[in-house]
Amino acid sequence: MLERAIQDIKPLCDKTMKQAQKRVDNLIKPEGSLGKLESYYVQLCGIQRTVKPSTANKAVIVMASDHGVFEEGVAVSPRPVTMVQAINMTRGLTGVCALSKAAGAEVVVVDVGIDADMSGTGVIDRKIMPHGSNNLAKGPAMTRQEAIKVLETGIEMAHEKIDQGSRLIGIGEMGIANTTPSSAIVSVITGTDPSIVTGPGANLPKAQVGHKANVIKRSIALNCPNREDGVDILSKVGGLDIGGMAGIILGCASRQVPVIIDGFIALAAALIAVKISPQVRGYLIPSHRSMEPGARIASKFLELDPPLAMDMRLGEGTGAALMFGILEAAVQMEQHMVSFDEGGFTLPPAK
Amino acid sequence: MLERAIQDIKPLCDKTMKQAQKRVDNLIKPEGSLGKLESYYVQLCGIQRTVKPSTANKAVIVMASDHGVFEEGVAVSPRPVTMVQAINMTRGLTGVCALSKAAGAEVVVVDVGIDADMSGTGVIDRKIMPHGSNNLAKGPAMTRQEAIKVLETGIEMAHEKIDQGSRLIGIGEMGIANTTPSSAIVSVITGTDPSIVTGPGANLPKAQVGHKANVIKRSIALNCPNREDGVDILSKVGGLDIGGMAGIILGCASRQVPVIIDGFIALAAALIAVKISPQVRGYLIPSHRSMEPGARIASKFLELDPPLAMDMRLGEGTGAALMFGILEAAVQMEQHMVSFDEGGFTLPPAK
Repeated sequence: MLERAIQDIKPLCDKTMKQAQKRVDNLIKPEGSLGKLESYYVQLCGIQRTVKPSTANKAVIVMASDHGVFEEGVAVSPRPVTMVQAINMTRGLTGVCALSKAAGAEVVVVDVGIDADMSGTGVIDRKIMPHGSNNLAKGPAMTRQEAIKVLETGIEMAHEKIDQGSRLIGIGEMGIANTTPSSAIVSVITGTDPSIVTGPGANLPKAQVGHKANVIKRSIALNCPNREDGVDILSKVGGLDIGGMAGIILGCASRQVPVIIDGFIALAAALIAVKISPQVRGYLIPSHRSMEPGARIASKFLELDPPLAMDMRLGEGTGAALMFGILEAAVQMEQHMVSFDEGGFTLPPAK
Repeated sequence: MLERAIQDIKPLCDKTMKQAQKRVDNLIKPEGSLGKLESYYVQLCGIQRTVKPSTANKAVIVMASDHGVFEEGVAVSPRPVTMVQAINMTRGLTGVCALSKAAGAEVVVVDVGIDADMSGTGVIDRKIMPHGSNNLAKGPAMTRQEAIKVLETGIEMAHEKIDQGSRLIGIGEMGIANTTPSSAIVSVITGTDPSIVTGPGANLPKAQVGHKANVIKRSIALNCPNREDGVDILSKVGGLDIGGMAGIILGCASRQVPVIIDGFIALAAALIAVKISPQVRGYLIPSHRSMEPGARIASKFLELDPPLAMDMRLGEGTGAALMFGILEAAVQMEQHMVSFDEGGFTLPPAK
């Protein structure tokens, strides 16, 4: 199934993008003056293979799981917060829910490894490891089979939403301690020292950030992930939530649906997805500039320039949710603005 | 009337802001992790003097006028574009209309000096000077009386929208050549040389930007505006659209309504408004980071940090229109997120 999804990922449609660019250049404004709104419109057209792209049934898919590395003292939030917040999400009570409501988007929460019995809650049960990933400071976070399984779960969840009509999907996560595997992934794939990548995550006191970086350094040395193999990196120093998100990205790209990246953890997932299939890069839309130091490093590596400088560092998919409105504006730009021919004058081209 | 508005501008309500900050800190997320969404919410509360701020009846008020300095060759767009685009705006066909539609906001277009007979169009007739401002390279752009009149027109237009129920207003403009007076204002008030402030505006070829800067330098030397007197600066090196926007700012602040600043020209208007009444500073909400070099200088002077890095440089109020969704998300954050007491756990405070 993973192989099949990878095979289905095509490059963006050049012909449609050229048509889209022409339409944008003919809208009644100085050439290029709507900046990234123009490029997002062109990208959406290239992805969806139409100059009338759709943002119908917007959804944020949140992957939730626990992390064995929590026991190394890399996070200050209590571990059960993963479970409690996953449930709160199904009730519309967390950050991503509020921002999604503002954007008219749905939130879907998937349990890929929460260390708790979630039956009877609204969380979708797709547990891969019932107690979450293993402690990557002591060995691989999961087996290669488990990594493939969580990727395929992400692909399936994306395909399910797309089958229900979603044409724009954001990714989010809930998993106490998940900035630790994310930092490890960013460190390995971008070739950056953990001491540079690692930050405070969810308010880890500054004095403990060095310890967190050391745990990451040790984990990488112990597990020796193969830099060129995304599945290997995910299984050795990743996490289930991150793997699920990487799967959503692959699933969206395989069905020509744009996928909005959130902050730091989503960027780590994007790095894994791009390692597995470089073609997915064109399907990624950045959102906010996370405060985590590794976010800038990962964005640069992926050549993504997130437009929202909101000083946010909550995760959950909150940045992706804020981005929906911007993309809708990009689509409405083309729908409502008149062309020069119709608008009554011409302007000289940009020089 | 101008004096009355200035007297009505009060500082933001500290007590409400403290209450608002407490509410935000108690929402179920790591402290401070929603960044600027949190600070915008607190600011809206301080402005509207309630912890349940409203964004009802959002509107962009566009001030349109022509500029005598056009004859110096500082713009490449034909002068009648001001007239044509003002009419197109009443028909919903321009950039600000499309983005406002996406945000569910109204666009109002006011003629404060378009060099054309606008009767029979949907543009609101509040002409101060029938042919637009005078050429500031040859003398004052307008008299002091005209400057006061256009400020009062802005105040009136803001009060009218507020009386109709608007609780969040963005400012926009249409006026070919208006980056020239804007650059002059930014240069005078921030004490920055015109050669640093001046940019290409609406696609002026690079080779002509130096000429534009020289025109501005010459105009400032000729008119000798008094740096400490906002009305004097507006009358000598400003423009009617800019004056109208400054008036909207004063009008919003005098009625405790937040006002969203657009890009470069709106920032010049904000500088004028702040010179006239420093208290208005608290009522300003930034939006996008305009590509015009002077925008960064003006933002810094006003201590505004625009969150949207969209590479836009169209004006019209397009940046302000994109900001509506962000502010609605800030309000919905407080409305929908549960508190820690209700949400089932606690987190340690940020260190």
